[in-house]
Amino acid sequence: MDYRHVIEQVMSTTAPHIGEGAVADYIPGLASVDPKQFGFAVATVDGQVYGDGDVDVPFAIESISKVFALALVLGRQDGAIWDRVHREPSGMPFNDLIELELEAGIPRNPYINPGAIVVADQLLADTGDAVSTLRDFFRAETGNRSLEVDSVIAESELRSGDRNRAIGYLMASFGNMRNPVDLALDHYFRQCSFSITCAELAKAGLIVARHGLRADGSRLLERADARHLIALMTTCGTYDAAGEFAYRVGLPCKSGVGGAILAVVPDRCAIAAWGPGLDEKGNSVSGAVALEAFARAGHFSVF
Amino acid sequence: MDYRHVIEQVMSTTAPHIGEGAVADYIPGLASVDPKQFGFAVATVDGQVYGDGDVDVPFAIESISKVFALALVLGRQDGAIWDRVHREPSGMPFNDLIELELEAGIPRNPYINPGAIVVADQLLADTGDAVSTLRDFFRAETGNRSLEVDSVIAESELRSGDRNRAIGYLMASFGNMRNPVDLALDHYFRQCSFSITCAELAKAGLIVARHGLRADGSRLLERADARHLIALMTTCGTYDAAGEFAYRVGLPCKSGVGGAILAVVPDRCAIAAWGPGLDEKGNSVSGAVALEAFARAGHFSVF
Amino acid sequence: MDYRHVIEQVMSTTAPHIGEGAVADYIPGLASVDPKQFGFAVATVDGQVYGDGDVDVPFAIESISKVFALALVLGRQDGAIWDRVHREPSGMPFNDLIELELEAGIPRNPYINPGAIVVADQLLADTGDAVSTLRDFFRAETGNRSLEVDSVIAESELRSGDRNRAIGYLMASFGNMRNPVDLALDHYFRQCSFSITCAELAKAGLIVARHGLRADGSRLLERADARHLIALMTTCGTYDAAGEFAYRVGLPCKSGVGGAILAVVPDRCAIAAWGPGLDEKGNSVSGAVALEAFARAGHFSVF
Amino acid sequence: MDYRHVIEQVMSTTAPHIGEGAVADYIPGLASVDPKQFGFAVATVDGQVYGDGDVDVPFAIESISKVFALALVLGRQDGAIWDRVHREPSGMPFNDLIELELEAGIPRNPYINPGAIVVADQLLADTGDAVSTLRDFFRAETGNRSLEVDSVIAESELRSGDRNRAIGYLMASFGNMRNPVDLALDHYFRQCSFSITCAELAKAGLIVARHGLRADGSRLLERADARHLIALMTTCGTYDAAGEFAYRVGLPCKSGVGGAILAVVPDRCAIAAWGPGLDEKGNSVSGAVALEAFARAGHFSVF
Repeated sequence: MDYRHVIEQVMSTTAPHIGEGAVADYIPGLASVDPKQFGFAVATVDGQVYGDGDVDVPFAIESISKVFALALVLGRQDGAIWDRVHREPSGMPFNDLIELELEAGIPRNPYINPGAIVVADQLLADTGDAVSTLRDFFRAETGNRSLEVDSVIAESELRSGDRNRAIGYLMASFGNMRNPVDLALDHYFRQCSFSITCAELAKAGLIVARHGLRADGSRLLERADARHLIALMTTCGTYDAAGEFAYRVGLPCKSGVGGAILAVVPDRCAIAAWGPGLDEKGNSVSGAVALEAFARAGHFSVF
Repeated sequence: MDYRHVIEQVMSTTAPHIGEGAVADYIPGLASVDPKQFGFAVATVDGQVYGDGDVDVPFAIESISKVFALALVLGRQDGAIWDRVHREPSGMPFNDLIELELEAGIPRNPYINPGAIVVADQLLADTGDAVSTLRDFFRAETGNRSLEVDSVIAESELRSGDRNRAIGYLMASFGNMRNPVDLALDHYFRQCSFSITCAELAKAGLIVARHGLRADGSRLLERADARHLIALMTTCGTYDAAGEFAYRVGLPCKSGVGGAILAVVPDRCAIAAWGPGLDEKGNSVSGAVALEAFARAGHFSVF
Repeated sequence: MDYRHVIEQVMSTTAPHIGEGAVADYIPGLASVDPKQFGFAVATVDGQVYGDGDVDVPFAIESISKVFALALVLGRQDGAIWDRVHREPSGMPFNDLIELELEAGIPRNPYINPGAIVVADQLLADTGDAVSTLRDFFRAETGNRSLEVDSVIAESELRSGDRNRAIGYLMASFGNMRNPVDLALDHYFRQCSFSITCAELAKAGLIVARHGLRADGSRLLERADARHLIALMTTCGTYDAAGEFAYRVGLPCKSGVGGAILAVVPDRCAIAAWGPGLDEKGNSVSGAVALEAFARAGHFSVF
Repeated sequence: MDYRHVIEQVMSTTAPHIGEGAVADYIPGLASVDPKQFGFAVATVDGQVYGDGDVDVPFAIESISKVFALALVLGRQDGAIWDRVHREPSGMPFNDLIELELEAGIPRNPYINPGAIVVADQLLADTGDAVSTLRDFFRAETGNRSLEVDSVIAESELRSGDRNRAIGYLMASFGNMRNPVDLALDHYFRQCSFSITCAELAKAGLIVARHGLRADGSRLLERADARHLIALMTTCGTYDAAGEFAYRVGLPCKSGVGGAILAVVPDRCAIAAWGPGLDEKGNSVSGAVALEAFARAGHFSVF
């Protein structure tokens, strides 16, 4: 595979769409990002990294952190987390609390907010410090020893987090929280606030593409557990547009409101696309265009 | 009206039912109450108090406090509270969060928990101390200068309050809280924990029966606003059994899980019945029997 | 009670509001009614009828028929209908199907559409012809031997009845229909289409005010069952404005989108107000003003 | 690929599970099927068919027909169907009516019942006879000129279809039906009742694996539209177990309560597994085991 050539095609296809969409504005730290940026990076399972555009500009990882938190929980457990969160797609975007109520406090999957809070809560319970565990992981996988939480973003998330608090306390009322809600949410908000670049995100994403093997060759989680990460990215990775992404991109993807999308081609590579402008469902406009172009140019789509 | 004779009939009709039902067990302070108690008191608008049974045994006021908190808010405002809470009956007992979500954070009425939290939050915003305001009110109306919050109950409520926290934060996420959620809930939990007797509750209830006049003859709230208190007691005063109470008792009632029920005959009297055993909907079994007997014996039913 | 004087006050208070509101437009038969009409009639338990305005103009009874259908079912049964429909207020106006789904096909009360369809279905099962039974009843109580279903309205209801069909089939899927859904709905739509005048509606309403006694002195239903009719009118009689009506009018009321409202003062009189213009919740604007004036002028409010 | 060898492995892995699960019992025609049957067939894009077990025993196609109905609609339209049905996964299995209500009559996807009814309604509107169109298609693709609807099954479906009628009328009330509800449902029930064998189903499924090319080489639908079929199978093809199937099987699948599951490996083959015993979510137990074994043995999983 000539990744350089594929990336050239991606960049030229994406160029007219850079700046499209609306930057997330629910917190100041995201609202102030320059929308006219775009980065695209591919990390291969044999250790190469290719990229173009703003691949070294850090952004907030946001919901993409959910993949890694789940990987770290699965790596420490024999699946007990699945008693606390289901693995099926969710329905309407706005009904997370309704679903939680009707399903007695068990979230539908680990990639909607209620499920991700459960995973963060579990990682905190298992390790004593979810954020440090994630930080160590990101630093090891990316080689960036100063990769860190953006404290401004984290503080903003904390201030605007009432809905997530409602979710946390509702789950607590059903007995589905292990730590005090405020403490678990503190870790959750900081987890979402890691500052990372496209190139780094692609490298971290190799844990998925390699079915659980870390950069140093050690095994973080079982191959079967890694398949859960991939399956969940396909069915639930892009908010209420999982069906649309399956059709357009045809690869397992996980997006974040920071404007990044992580995709994987199992056993081959991990891809990170970043453009801050979002569509109405919260997925990066330019990122989606880029990944669609990548899948087509490289004949990667699984469909 | 020969209230003594009516009360005799009430007591004899109720006697076989004393001890029926299950004491509320969600917090230790309520679970330990002796279920074989029963008290019944009537306070008339001209200042007489009649009673029998355990009329001087204190119990937790619980949800009946919602009537008085609303009275105190209405007495300080020109109805602005109705922008924050509707005045209509609610539906299914378990769907308070679903309703809140579908109605954008505006509770259905002030007597379900979400609405009562809004009212407590407003009273706190208006007075700086909702609990002190209520305490002063209760002391003045009952003449009991040592009437106080039961701190054991309050502490228990606080510990078991995750669902109410979920409600509070959900309303906050819709912009419908004026104080920090934790602070408002602290006042709310203590408001529910006032320790009061049947005789005292009947006397306090005269504020409703007198359409807003206090024991000292001063006006707390307008007659029209007091009508709201009465109308809401009729349509929403007894959890998911308002229709059943309208049929059986035919008087405006407000119940609490402490086992008390407050009823009023407008312009005539306020009645407090107390028996700790609850039916499955959370209303006192003996209290409902007693109020039904009272309405029948005194021909008070409005239906 | 000088009803003539009270009615004078009602008419003068209501005059400025005649024509306010919007005529129901979901079916042609209702949309073409002249909005500038208004009638007001009082029938007393001792047989007098007072009225003013358009008291002899026929209109579609619509949802007010639900009271009479329920009376006729209760008069034939010992409460078995309460296994098929609850007696509690409903919540949000638009969530009838959601409630039905969550409560396994048992409607919240007989005055929302799902409950009224159950009652019509039961009356049909009990009598073989719900419409004829109602027609006979209306003719006997009003003395109008030609009182009849308005076939144009009935046909319009039938054509626009898809949502009611959805409700009927959903209840059937839960086993809560006794007749074929289409047949039960045919009776239900015609039941709603009876053409009646204010004076006639007030006379028919005496069955409620007299706690079950018919015009000829015979007993249609037990006094206790009649209390259900009254209690349900108070808590659920005016769509999503029961709380507002309890506050403003303070009398048990049942409204219909034809623009009429039936109210009762138990043991004294039945009142029918009619003005086709509706508020946003579906209750007659002028009718509500009139009933509020009536309750105030006659000191009838139970609150 | 040595399909014979792969199928041998599938059969030996599946053997211990044949007969597991419960046969669908909501209609007599399904309840009477012998649960101890199992068939497995693979049809390749180059025209070979491999199989073992009960590959020539006919069964009811049930929900798998939804894939073909959608293919036929997409082949006749330029995507207008997507105005009537979304393409995203649904949430809780029991909330289809709740979702429809909250989303104004637009189903979440074409593979839940509401969406499939919309597709059948559209196919009927486009062709004048949805069942004949499907019959012609099945006969042409399978070469079985007597392939037909099982009229006993169809009659049973019709009799037990009240919930689907509720769904149809609710959509009609939102303006999302093109034909009379009863007529559309008649076609829908018969569409689900086609009697087909494993070998035939695999051959018909090639329309998906070939991205829209029919057995005779003509194009039924555009390659891009065919990708929708595949994406929807992955995200929504197996009721409330799409996530589980993505993890276990890793191939686009569509299941039916008749006990069959259709899977595809794009550009390579279509696979039909059939065993009548279902798990609690309605998917064939032996079929799922078989497909998992097939994907593993042939290294077909896309994850």
